[in-house]
Amino acid sequence: MPSPEEFLDETREQGLRELEEFLRIPSISSQPEHADDVRRAAGHLAEQYERIGLQNAEVIDTAGHPVVYADWLKAPGKPTVLLYGHYDVQPVDPLDLWTSPPFEPIRQDGQLLGRGSSDDKGQIALHWQAMHAWLNTTGELPLNIKVIAEGEEEISSLHFEEFVRANRDRLKTDYCVVSDTTMVARGFPAITYALRGLVYVELRVEASTVDMHSGQMGGMAPNPAQALAEILTRLKDPAGHILVPGFYDGVRPLNEDEQHQFARVPFDEAALKKTYGLEALAGEPGYTPTERNWARPTLDVNGIWGGYQGPGAKTIIPAWAAAKISCRLVPDQEPATVAAALRDYIDKIRPKTVRIKLTELESHSQPWITPVDDPLIQAGRRALERVYGKDPALIRSGGSIGAVEIMGRLLGAPTLLVGFVLPDCFAHAPNERLDLESFYLGQKAAAQLWDEISRIPGR
Amino acid sequence: MPSPEEFLDETREQGLRELEEFLRIPSISSQPEHADDVRRAAGHLAEQYERIGLQNAEVIDTAGHPVVYADWLKAPGKPTVLLYGHYDVQPVDPLDLWTSPPFEPIRQDGQLLGRGSSDDKGQIALHWQAMHAWLNTTGELPLNIKVIAEGEEEISSLHFEEFVRANRDRLKTDYCVVSDTTMVARGFPAITYALRGLVYVELRVEASTVDMHSGQMGGMAPNPAQALAEILTRLKDPAGHILVPGFYDGVRPLNEDEQHQFARVPFDEAALKKTYGLEALAGEPGYTPTERNWARPTLDVNGIWGGYQGPGAKTIIPAWAAAKISCRLVPDQEPATVAAALRDYIDKIRPKTVRIKLTELESHSQPWITPVDDPLIQAGRRALERVYGKDPALIRSGGSIGAVEIMGRLLGAPTLLVGFVLPDCFAHAPNERLDLESFYLGQKAAAQLWDEISRIPGR
Repeated sequence: MPSPEEFLDETREQGLRELEEFLRIPSISSQPEHADDVRRAAGHLAEQYERIGLQNAEVIDTAGHPVVYADWLKAPGKPTVLLYGHYDVQPVDPLDLWTSPPFEPIRQDGQLLGRGSSDDKGQIALHWQAMHAWLNTTGELPLNIKVIAEGEEEISSLHFEEFVRANRDRLKTDYCVVSDTTMVARGFPAITYALRGLVYVELRVEASTVDMHSGQMGGMAPNPAQALAEILTRLKDPAGHILVPGFYDGVRPLNEDEQHQFARVPFDEAALKKTYGLEALAGEPGYTPTERNWARPTLDVNGIWGGYQGPGAKTIIPAWAAAKISCRLVPDQEPATVAAALRDYIDKIRPKTVRIKLTELESHSQPWITPVDDPLIQAGRRALERVYGKDPALIRSGGSIGAVEIMGRLLGAPTLLVGFVLPDCFAHAPNERLDLESFYLGQKAAAQLWDEISRIPGR
Repeated sequence: MPSPEEFLDETREQGLRELEEFLRIPSISSQPEHADDVRRAAGHLAEQYERIGLQNAEVIDTAGHPVVYADWLKAPGKPTVLLYGHYDVQPVDPLDLWTSPPFEPIRQDGQLLGRGSSDDKGQIALHWQAMHAWLNTTGELPLNIKVIAEGEEEISSLHFEEFVRANRDRLKTDYCVVSDTTMVARGFPAITYALRGLVYVELRVEASTVDMHSGQMGGMAPNPAQALAEILTRLKDPAGHILVPGFYDGVRPLNEDEQHQFARVPFDEAALKKTYGLEALAGEPGYTPTERNWARPTLDVNGIWGGYQGPGAKTIIPAWAAAKISCRLVPDQEPATVAAALRDYIDKIRPKTVRIKLTELESHSQPWITPVDDPLIQAGRRALERVYGKDPALIRSGGSIGAVEIMGRLLGAPTLLVGFVLPDCFAHAPNERLDLESFYLGQKAAAQLWDEISRIPGR
């Protein structure tokens, strides 16, 4: 009888074909015309879970796209883990930048190209193959597992909180494991222990009820676009320091261990500038780019508009101008507190010649952090070290994963974020790809993870 | 046989219907999909000129929209006047703010509502009705008239200079009269002796070649909307003083007569605020609102855009942001000099983390001023005083009429600017309207004008 690791080595080709089949279903959650594809992907995934030997596989309806559930609970006395992934994918536009059709996966130079190959179907597949390896070779898993795969991660997990609330008993767990993050580099694994939260507002600055003729009113009328610019420049100074009083209250400073861990992660400024076509990086003075992205809050204009945007000249003073403004938050900032501080400050500094309206959009999310000395995190470290021969980096992420904060809050279990794909996998972009060497190694790491978690003492 | 004035009284309803028919043609010169409508309006106008008894009516092609020409040259020994108007109109967006469809004129509370009703089809119609009154009642006009109506006034008279150059002989004249300005108030006529010029640029600020994920790049990437805001706030201080070095060079100070004339013009700040729904007026310190609008240069953002403008939240850092920026210029500023000063300054102050591109749009125009003691201006004063019983105000205008500067320069004839519509006619805005009482009186004033000009001595 082979070991789980040997089984994985022997079934590489078969495992890859299974993933390719999964990738062919265009489960784009944001596009209503793909709603049936999303459902088809859910059904397909439930079949995989049944095939490998999980039980109670079910496509559970929500008010939006369904959640796939399956479990294996035959390890009495062992811990229970809830494993999270998402089977929905991002849209594919601009299609003309893809070198091959996004839903016809091809293998090229050690990569598998296709939408969802890394984010997140590849990570789902890697886990089902690791579980298959255990079940096929030993007839059991080393602990109890409940698997869920969400269908709305790419659309802000719209109905996920509702789903968790409605299924709290079924989802009861000791630990959560989420595989929707990246490694540091090929062969260099990472555990993500903090995510940023979000406050998102729309600011509308109104000077008049109608657009004005710039000849008739120029020199007399206030200009709302100018007023908006004045407000924006008082929110953040040119160096990148945010000027909203109280904004940085609650920001947890980095400790030395964190700074050390961050510094382990190679940062290639030249490559980043090239990827995005940047002249230079920018941001709050006194921190490295990595520290700014992972552990410092930001304030950014996401969109701005008002007046005439068409070709040529239109000589108006606009009636109004608006901007979308969002802040990425870090522990222990509170979204509601930050939103209130922003509101108070803008109201104070606004030019008195204009009216303003600040709308908080329904996408605030809490920052999330978990103690790195938690036994779950330590078990994850050991599993990764065994497979990669290297202590994983303990990193944060500049983004948000809504599901993580929701599960932590509603299920009361510690969460381990561990991903097996590379940072330059072009998630959300054209030519999304999966590094196959990382994929194969990830399967083994996933298999080890259950073993290590099953041994956590004194739970 | 009735007098011209009596004829105008008797044909009010018919005259209004003729204008309404003209207004139904959506001759929006800036929108290619309306090119046929613009041509149709030109043909329609040429027919009106023929109908009332003018001769040589012709739709003259240009590289853009055509110019309508007609003349009546049977007054040997009398002066020749070139009468200018424009039959093109502004776009109608935002359409939802119109209380009635813009190209279905309706009468309401003594006003005629519709795009072009005041700017400038109403003034064209008022003149054709005055000429019709002369020709119908006396069989002749008191002087020689050449009428031209431009189809590109609202798009900066793009091909007008070319047209005048090509038709210099045909347009040869002793005097020019332009009716595209406003009165001071109902019953209070005005002669406009100076216009502002214009410099119009588009500024594009680019940080990256693609939109960036605000989680992945927030804290590291420069934000082009923020950079644009920083540039805008360095162009003009919050009080309204323009900060571009050299910008005010060449500005001709007001003399005491001018200040006196300006002060004759009632300025109702409360009414203006109500009309436009303004919280307050704004502008350069040290000048009255009228002085700021008529005799001081301005700098205004006409439009701003970049990033996500749709509903809800999209967590991007935009690749780029842009603004349309224009300056109204006064004598003796030079558009090319101002544009160069703006370019140099923006290049100097731009954040070095972004790339900028400044495009001068083809709509620069010279400021224009004419001596108020010219016999033509004096004849205009007398005509207006006869009809309105009041010495007209000698005013300037905050706007630009490119054609005025071009005709003055190429035809070498003095120009009289006299308009018969009200300042609060919502030109360029939703619910543009024509005050009917002013329209009827304007017809009589136009009729008188030819009489007074025909008597100018010692030409």
